[in-house]
Amino acid sequence: MRLDVFVSPREISPGELQGRVVAVIDVLRASTSIAVALDNGARSVIPVESAEAAIATSKQFEGVQVRLAGERKMRVIPGFDMGNSPTEFTEEAIAGCIVITTTTNGTAALLSLQGATDVVVASYVNYSVVAAMLRAAARSDVDISIVCAGTEGHFSLEDAACAGKYVRSIGGGAGSITANDAARACALIDRKYGDNIAKIFEDSTHGKALAEAGFGADLVFCAAVDSHPVVPIYQERQITRVGPARER
Amino acid sequence: MRLDVFVSPREISPGELQGRVVAVIDVLRASTSIAVALDNGARSVIPVESAEAAIATSKQFEGVQVRLAGERKMRVIPGFDMGNSPTEFTEEAIAGCIVITTTTNGTAALLSLQGATDVVVASYVNYSVVAAMLRAAARSDVDISIVCAGTEGHFSLEDAACAGKYVRSIGGGAGSITANDAARACALIDRKYGDNIAKIFEDSTHGKALAEAGFGADLVFCAAVDSHPVVPIYQERQITRVGPARER
Repeated sequence: MRLDVFVSPREISPGELQGRVVAVIDVLRASTSIAVALDNGARSVIPVESAEAAIATSKQFEGVQVRLAGERKMRVIPGFDMGNSPTEFTEEAIAGCIVITTTTNGTAALLSLQGATDVVVASYVNYSVVAAMLRAAARSDVDISIVCAGTEGHFSLEDAACAGKYVRSIGGGAGSITANDAARACALIDRKYGDNIAKIFEDSTHGKALAEAGFGADLVFCAAVDSHPVVPIYQERQITRVGPARER
Repeated sequence: MRLDVFVSPREISPGELQGRVVAVIDVLRASTSIAVALDNGARSVIPVESAEAAIATSKQFEGVQVRLAGERKMRVIPGFDMGNSPTEFTEEAIAGCIVITTTTNGTAALLSLQGATDVVVASYVNYSVVAAMLRAAARSDVDISIVCAGTEGHFSLEDAACAGKYVRSIGGGAGSITANDAARACALIDRKYGDNIAKIFEDSTHGKALAEAGFGADLVFCAAVDSHPVVPIYQERQITRVGPARER
């Protein structure tokens, strides 16, 4: 099977994801926040492209509690219930709710995926369960693509490193795999940093920007491997968790 | 100053190269072949987007010997004088000639660079002289972008590794540098492979494809650091060498 990493959605050519299982990664912070929201009891997360679309979408739901979440330039969108900090998606804030979200890179990446068979939202906080699902796909000889959200169309170190962690897990668990050059490079980056995810964030442009903007706590949160073991699946324009809600 | 790597031309946003010194890299094989052609006495190399454009452009020159060079799917374009093997650009074949060239990735990358102040063609075979020029720019606080041609819009290992070699050279020679995440990742890739460029090509998708297609000799040629010490500058749609021709 093939295992391809795209270091930004701009690398994807039309039709290139057809029939594939796709994992989309925006470690800082959208894919982390989505995993946290679903683990803490959100009914679903609906990614949309703009603040206006979020408000319009929210009006389609009656009798369901809706939360508007999103950022521009890292800050909460005015009038929204929350920004894009995973720390905001507590059980108190979102259990039983539909979360409608728009972020600069993560939701754009999700909305760019055309033709994929299954799309899973991947990060460090839900690493092992998502990796297990991808290894199962690999064993069934299904091609896998990992799409890094990147930063405004550019390569980002933290997404590439996280992609590399998945690549190494899949490569270690399956038979014959043809990986593209980006997959190979990402595996190399992950190997270099090892378990020191805090150092990846320290070295990354977006990690530095978040730290400088006062979101240092988010970085600690986003580095907590397996703290929120959910498999978030994106289909029919919404993201829901696979399997029953966590017992509390 | 800023030092940014773009792992493929698709990463470049409009205006992003404005006022910058840009190094463009297509190690396998266009940027290597261009350096070799100029070192072996070609008057200039003119990159164009298609075989048809190459033929049309060749008709503009009277009283000058013109050579048509180019590949599609690695093979020479029918009717052309040569393909894209650096081994073809011998002194006998091209000294005194204008070479009009079209290749899948390298010329597309060159033609995509809008707004740059200076564009230099970089590879392993002309590494040290081009790195010296880039370090001079860095010392003058001029921003530098390194554009990897990649493979059909995708990240390619050999271009990223070569970009990393330049990043490390520039970073080691100048003062305060802000590098983007891709620059950091490429430096890491170069550091991992060290001087073993043959191994980079062995691991890269395009290197493997060339070896399988019988172009193994090209790989040895493209890995020969500093074998063709020219600084090829792209301006007004043609590439010429800086400084006088090599004495023979």
